[in-house]
Amino acid sequence: AISSTDNEHQHLRYNPLRDTWVLVSAHRMKRPWAGQVEKPPEEHTPRYDPRNPLCPGNTRANGEVNSDYDSTFLFENDFPALQPDAPDPGSDQHPLFQSKVARGVCKVMCFHPWSDVTLSLMKKQEVVKVIDKWAELIEELGTTYLWVQIFENKGAMMGCSNPHPHCQVWASNFLPNEPALSDRCQRAYYQKHGEPLLLQYAKQEAEKKERVVVETSDWLAVVPYWATWPYQTLLLPRRHVLRINDLTTEEREGLADIMKQLLTKYDNLFEISFPYSMGWHGAPTGPHLNKDNSHWQLHAHYYPPLLRSATVKKFMVGYEMLAQDQRDLTPEQAAEKLRNLPEEHYKTREN
Amino acid sequence: AISSTDNEHQHLRYNPLRDTWVLVSAHRMKRPWAGQVEKPPEEHTPRYDPRNPLCPGNTRANGEVNSDYDSTFLFENDFPALQPDAPDPGSDQHPLFQSKVARGVCKVMCFHPWSDVTLSLMKKQEVVKVIDKWAELIEELGTTYLWVQIFENKGAMMGCSNPHPHCQVWASNFLPNEPALSDRCQRAYYQKHGEPLLLQYAKQEAEKKERVVVETSDWLAVVPYWATWPYQTLLLPRRHVLRINDLTTEEREGLADIMKQLLTKYDNLFEISFPYSMGWHGAPTGPHLNKDNSHWQLHAHYYPPLLRSATVKKFMVGYEMLAQDQRDLTPEQAAEKLRNLPEEHYKTREN
Ligand SMILES: O=P(O)(O)O[C@H]1O[C@H](CO)[C@@H](O)[C@H](O)[C@H]1O
Ligand SMILES: O=P(O)(O)O[C@H]1O[C@H](CO)[C@@H](O)[C@H](O)[C@H]1O
Repeated sequence: AISSTDNEHQHLRYNPLRDTWVLVSAHRMKRPWAGQVEKPPEEHTPRYDPRNPLCPGNTRANGEVNSDYDSTFLFENDFPALQPDAPDPGSDQHPLFQSKVARGVCKVMCFHPWSDVTLSLMKKQEVVKVIDKWAELIEELGTTYLWVQIFENKGAMMGCSNPHPHCQVWASNFLPNEPALSDRCQRAYYQKHGEPLLLQYAKQEAEKKERVVVETSDWLAVVPYWATWPYQTLLLPRRHVLRINDLTTEEREGLADIMKQLLTKYDNLFEISFPYSMGWHGAPTGPHLNKDNSHWQLHAHYYPPLLRSATVKKFMVGYEMLAQDQRDLTPEQAAEKLRNLPEEHYKTREN
Repeated sequence: AISSTDNEHQHLRYNPLRDTWVLVSAHRMKRPWAGQVEKPPEEHTPRYDPRNPLCPGNTRANGEVNSDYDSTFLFENDFPALQPDAPDPGSDQHPLFQSKVARGVCKVMCFHPWSDVTLSLMKKQEVVKVIDKWAELIEELGTTYLWVQIFENKGAMMGCSNPHPHCQVWASNFLPNEPALSDRCQRAYYQKHGEPLLLQYAKQEAEKKERVVVETSDWLAVVPYWATWPYQTLLLPRRHVLRINDLTTEEREGLADIMKQLLTKYDNLFEISFPYSMGWHGAPTGPHLNKDNSHWQLHAHYYPPLLRSATVKKFMVGYEMLAQDQRDLTPEQAAEKLRNLPEEHYKTREN
């Protein structure tokens, strides 16, 4: 078995949620980096900017005025990739030219009225409000739509065009590729082993400890055994939970705690507001609400791009795009590094 | 059927090489962009730089001295992700903690002694030499290795740390995820339809024309019906060819021609040295050399990141990472734009 000290040799690891492999070449961290350097994240975002369309009371691109919100704030994306009324494109019938109708809605949700905070720096009760809103959205949009994707792009490096803390929700009449694959993998595992994949996984990781970053009585955040991004993590409840709206009040409080802890470690890693894309995966909704989804377990994926420093990211390019994901440090090395970081945020730490 | 003029509504398209779908939301190009802007590619690379480890006669990181090459030049990657002698990691046996041995070699191949040229600007006969070398590499490494991935990361935006024109070759004892998926899809199609998927596809596109960018008597370059990157293209021969070393002398000349034409259009699009990752996929090698690979057709994928201009790329982030690829213009729009660009390179054009 791979020991956490074998950091010298490449090997492959299996991702059971995607039925794919990742090439782990830890010794690659030794190579010098002469490539592209990113701009570090902006450290001085004003709390309120009259030109920022996400701030309370401001006017957006379509002329609508934001309410004077003091907690979370939800609105329709002004440039939605999914609209509720798209026509059916029909199909050419030829197997190589297949198309399908795509209908849905895209929403944006601000986490907080201030532009200069992030989830890691918000008060626990403010984070709980975000979680409650996520649960409401899954509940409401889930009555109609088959899949409701909640995701956050954080930082300019992740294509996020606005520093104001916010996430997006894209709901669709179809099951997108990633959850479709995850659904197949979890179902096959359940049929074979009689227990949900991620429930068995959480138990194993809680015992092994070497990939755990933070844990609470109800939650676990680990660098998964099959992580592809350098500091990728998987956040999941220890109890069998299908969807975020199934979480109890206590579990939501616990989730706010562990999110703050995990995101504080992320920010502390390079002492910057850590960029990432994250999102929630839970059992499908809409027509799937009445089906058996016992194979599912709620979880969030965090995919941060940085590798070496605040300005050097991992490029998932040539070999990764054409052949297979490859990583330059082991998941155990990444977990250890994150685990050993201070629990207090670098911005609030006393010197 | 989707007509090339329906650029207003989102729909899904099927990628038969990956068994996945892409969300096409053409109307998204209307949104303004306030996000990250890339540094445009460096326009003034010196022809020879005494500190560049890829130039003729220079010394590399490991102390080796490059020959005074005047054509292509091949050497072992000084920081290989794959090494020939990695130990077998063993496996924990648990289905959620599976690992496998990974062995291989990583090589780098310079295309030309000068740092200030690209394939688009090289002479046709110089490009033929690159193709001949690719064929030799598939032939030689293919006797031992199951998969030989030839790929080029071009431009700092694509994680390329050196402006000198070069590609990489990573050969492995395993079939990586992407070719494994493509192998499965091509095989299933062949079994069902009795003809190779990409051979049928090339015929259809050559007739339909709306996605063709450039074509010659032997080759075709199209923006595939299922393209995910804005200006992604697929380059393939019209004849049934399994591997690059099976190309005739005439077909190699034709390939040099069409590559120069395609890459010139790419450079002309935003009048910069166009960044991309590209790579070749052909029938597997090593133990697969004696098997029936009739379902395979040789092809190259070009994945360029730019969307709107020389400095605004498409971010494949949140929704794309967690749910599904999404594009902001139709493949037909992209093909038309590329097709209509001048055939002469902007750098050699007379004003
Ligand atoms: O080997 P290079 O060019 O230094 O590195 C580049 O290509 C590799 C193969 O696609 C990637 O793994 C690296 O992330 C990228 O920076
Ligand atoms: O909607 P935004 O934040 O403007 O856009 C960002 O997220 C989207 C969803 O992941 C991506 O499709 C875009 O490429 C990215 O720039």
